Amino acid sequence: MTRRTLQDNYLDLRDIHMALDVSRVEPVSDNLVDRCRIAIDAMERLEAGEPVNIDENRMVGHYWMRDPGRAPQNLGQSITETVNRIRAFVDAVHRGDVRPQQEEGFFILLLVGIGGSALGPQLLADALGDADDLMLLKCIDNTDPDGIDRILDEIGDNLAATMTLVVSKSGGTAETRNGMLEVAERYRQAGLDFARHAVAVTMTDSKLDRQATEEKWLARFPIWDHVGGRTSVTGAVGLLPAALLGFDTEQFLQGAAEADEVTRQPDPMANPAAQLAMALFSCRQRGKRNLVVLPYSDRLSLLTRYLQQLVMESLGKAVNRQGDVVAEGVSVLGNKGSTDQHALVQQLREGPDDCLLLFVGVRKTRSAPSIAVSDTACTSDFLHAFLLGTRTALTDAGRESMTLMLDSLDERMLGSLIALFERTVGIYAELANINAYHQPGVEAGKNSAGEELALRAAIVKLLAENGEDPLSAREVATRLQCDDRLASIYEWLAYLVHQPEIIGQPGIRVVRGDAAVPFDAPFRLQQGAVVNE
Amino acid sequence: MTRRTLQDNYLDLRDIHMALDVSRVEPVSDNLVDRCRIAIDAMERLEAGEPVNIDENRMVGHYWMRDPGRAPQNLGQSITETVNRIRAFVDAVHRGDVRPQQEEGFFILLLVGIGGSALGPQLLADALGDADDLMLLKCIDNTDPDGIDRILDEIGDNLAATMTLVVSKSGGTAETRNGMLEVAERYRQAGLDFARHAVAVTMTDSKLDRQATEEKWLARFPIWDHVGGRTSVTGAVGLLPAALLGFDTEQFLQGAAEADEVTRQPDPMANPAAQLAMALFSCRQRGKRNLVVLPYSDRLSLLTRYLQQLVMESLGKAVNRQGDVVAEGVSVLGNKGSTDQHALVQQLREGPDDCLLLFVGVRKTRSAPSIAVSDTACTSDFLHAFLLGTRTALTDAGRESMTLMLDSLDERMLGSLIALFERTVGIYAELANINAYHQPGVEAGKNSAGEELALRAAIVKLLAENGEDPLSAREVATRLQCDDRLASIYEWLAYLVHQPEIIGQPGIRVVRGDAAVPFDAPFRLQQGAVVNE
Repeated sequence: MTRRTLQDNYLDLRDIHMALDVSRVEPVSDNLVDRCRIAIDAMERLEAGEPVNIDENRMVGHYWMRDPGRAPQNLGQSITETVNRIRAFVDAVHRGDVRPQQEEGFFILLLVGIGGSALGPQLLADALGDADDLMLLKCIDNTDPDGIDRILDEIGDNLAATMTLVVSKSGGTAETRNGMLEVAERYRQAGLDFARHAVAVTMTDSKLDRQATEEKWLARFPIWDHVGGRTSVTGAVGLLPAALLGFDTEQFLQGAAEADEVTRQPDPMANPAAQLAMALFSCRQRGKRNLVVLPYSDRLSLLTRYLQQLVMESLGKAVNRQGDVVAEGVSVLGNKGSTDQHALVQQLREGPDDCLLLFVGVRKTRSAPSIAVSDTACTSDFLHAFLLGTRTALTDAGRESMTLMLDSLDERMLGSLIALFERTVGIYAELANINAYHQPGVEAGKNSAGEELALRAAIVKLLAENGEDPLSAREVATRLQCDDRLASIYEWLAYLVHQPEIIGQPGIRVVRGDAAVPFDAPFRLQQGAVVNE
Repeated sequence: MTRRTLQDNYLDLRDIHMALDVSRVEPVSDNLVDRCRIAIDAMERLEAGEPVNIDENRMVGHYWMRDPGRAPQNLGQSITETVNRIRAFVDAVHRGDVRPQQEEGFFILLLVGIGGSALGPQLLADALGDADDLMLLKCIDNTDPDGIDRILDEIGDNLAATMTLVVSKSGGTAETRNGMLEVAERYRQAGLDFARHAVAVTMTDSKLDRQATEEKWLARFPIWDHVGGRTSVTGAVGLLPAALLGFDTEQFLQGAAEADEVTRQPDPMANPAAQLAMALFSCRQRGKRNLVVLPYSDRLSLLTRYLQQLVMESLGKAVNRQGDVVAEGVSVLGNKGSTDQHALVQQLREGPDDCLLLFVGVRKTRSAPSIAVSDTACTSDFLHAFLLGTRTALTDAGRESMTLMLDSLDERMLGSLIALFERTVGIYAELANINAYHQPGVEAGKNSAGEELALRAAIVKLLAENGEDPLSAREVATRLQCDDRLASIYEWLAYLVHQPEIIGQPGIRVVRGDAAVPFDAPFRLQQGAVVNE
């Protein structure tokens, strides 16, 4: 590994209370630095409102949410109004003026959302939360009925004091809609009016927005068309739950604004987002396609998942902006240090040299003095020593790494941290000449899922028509004239056997007979209660 | 992608209530199948007690824990005795015969451990736990004082009803020892005798074992020398917390034993562990070095982290058993479906084709009938459709994947699942001719951390000697004659500024002056309370 000098590659970022050390990454070429200068220019045009999300002909507006003055006229006003409305609503909730149907106040916040609509709030709650938060955050971020039951059982009788926040940009995300319907049913069963406990965060005039208006939910807050889910945490998606939990959202926005300012620095070598982007990009060119994030802080253990979504959904793209095939992308993994020292660090040191590492440290971990756990050290000293020691051991093994050291961890620092990585992804996308702001690959899976549900309905219909006569997966495939979907047909039949009843057909279930080959096993509908389960 | 036939590549594993579909992986060569036959033979010798962990001259004994009859004479007896002792102890706790110093019974279980000593119990609790578990599991799995404080604050006054389980094979793991000392201090501050709330799980006669004996802790249970942390979950490490929480550990062991039996199948094509290992191995040979695990089940969202540890620590090895450099390893990532559909699936479909995917589904998700969330489907139908749909979308894009379908998820199924992957890793290691049972790369990081703590002590000593005269990082490096450690020296100084006081020097802290370059910034010790923080 060619060494960079420490002196020239240590960015002491006093304005945002952190430092970035890129001295353990191979030097970047002058050419890449020049390209990065152009990338930073392009980010300026993006911030000025150029519709850089060309495929969807959209502007990219997450930077405006912490500096509304930069947004096109009416958008800036709308951002400021929303922030003020959030503050007023949250104050009313905390004062008890906005209250549930039967209780004095709300003390549980149930967030129903998925992807960018859940992960940001989850990161905020985990990074900043404490036992004395004003509300307790629970999340339903999937369409798993067992997972939904578990969360609702944890809430139990406290449902009457639970505010449910339904977050969906389009207002039609299936998982979120399903979760909302299940939750609403629980309120109904408890004799409670769901609308009097519900808040919507969605695009104006979406299906969800219209439902919330009609049913007179407690409140509605907008997600703007030009803000993607994975960068929505400084908008209502993050601010509303953060404020309800009692976090200082002004500080959070200020931290993000400060990092935005620092990462507008036109000299790539002095710009931390540019340095991160160049390191990632040059590693990728050299065949290192994994980014391992190791935050030495329990509170940042969701950071990797957050970055996984931000990086992989933004940069994992088949074609560049001219439509040439590039198969771009960086895989993100990791959990937290020093816990991962006992898991994946073995491979990082000895396995294939295909990872770039990002150490994240927090200098201040506790305000009160600590007990000594050895002659000269406390737990915090050990944590810091493990970060530095693991870094040395990996550098000695020729592994490239970057280190980001935060002075502390609070609302402002977390805002800065998130904004730093948003800009890093933006600059990387410019270097790779890709659109970081759409997700065309997600549609295919959704469409396929729709076809699977249609297949399920067709199978059930066929079984119903066949009455007492059983059908095997192979026979169903032939009847439905889709032999190429035998695998899915069998998986639906095998799945249906384990359902207590078929939706829309009360008391009816699917039973299975024996056969040597699963695709020949006979299935039929049967009336009756669940037995032998 | 060359297609395999579904018929010949769908393993319907009725004995262990699951099915493995490997039809979406490129066919494996006859040569690999032959090598796999030899690998399965080698696993037989391993199970018979051959000391296959050659570097450490140890046997590999995790398979014996669910079938003690296979273990060498006295070991089998010791396993059975331990299982019986765990049962008796847990019964006594649940009956209230073993009780805390001041309360009627224990209802919180605080586990202090890291890596293999924590992740297994965490997976069990998350996969099997419900609101009505007999005890509530909390974990301290790091040496982060802020993380420790947060867990202890959550427990609060319930510390008096909290049993603390200290888990460390060697009994000397620094993070675990630190956590234990901090926890013991909290009991002391609460006027409670730590020993009357403490249980040790460790190797017989380790430092921890001797301390527990001397201080008369509630109980001690063994970890055997020939069982590695990452495969210890079917021993006391997993069984004790699982039983305390109220899970059926007999079923858990039975499930593991059943999967062991199924994965002893000598024909690789009919052996699910062999099929998984061959798919992973052949993908790795074709340059696909990432395994993405997508469990479509909220309860299995820790499975990826568990497999990350199991796979990466076992298979991430620099040299093979003959000492030739191989840089072997598979990186594991993923969280849960369909949540990841909104995060990393975009890249899986469109980005670099460097991943093998493992879908994991659970057919039975809820016992009671569900509400309809569309004309013909419930939440569970959607979950299943998302799995099948995402699989189709990724297959259409040429991505290779495997699918593991579980009939349900309970103690027995989880035991089978874990055993299946343990055997997969064992067979892969035979194919790659590496030792999967040691972790030499972890030592380097630990040793470096020790050197870092010594450096910290030397820095503080130097500052103390220098009194009022400040020193810069550069000056410290010169005085200590280690200019090559300037980065660490600066990071220690910058860190110490944020500590409320220096360990061993009450009321003393480090203060920093200004300078243009961080390495020239002056630092000195100062008496006095914390200001400006």
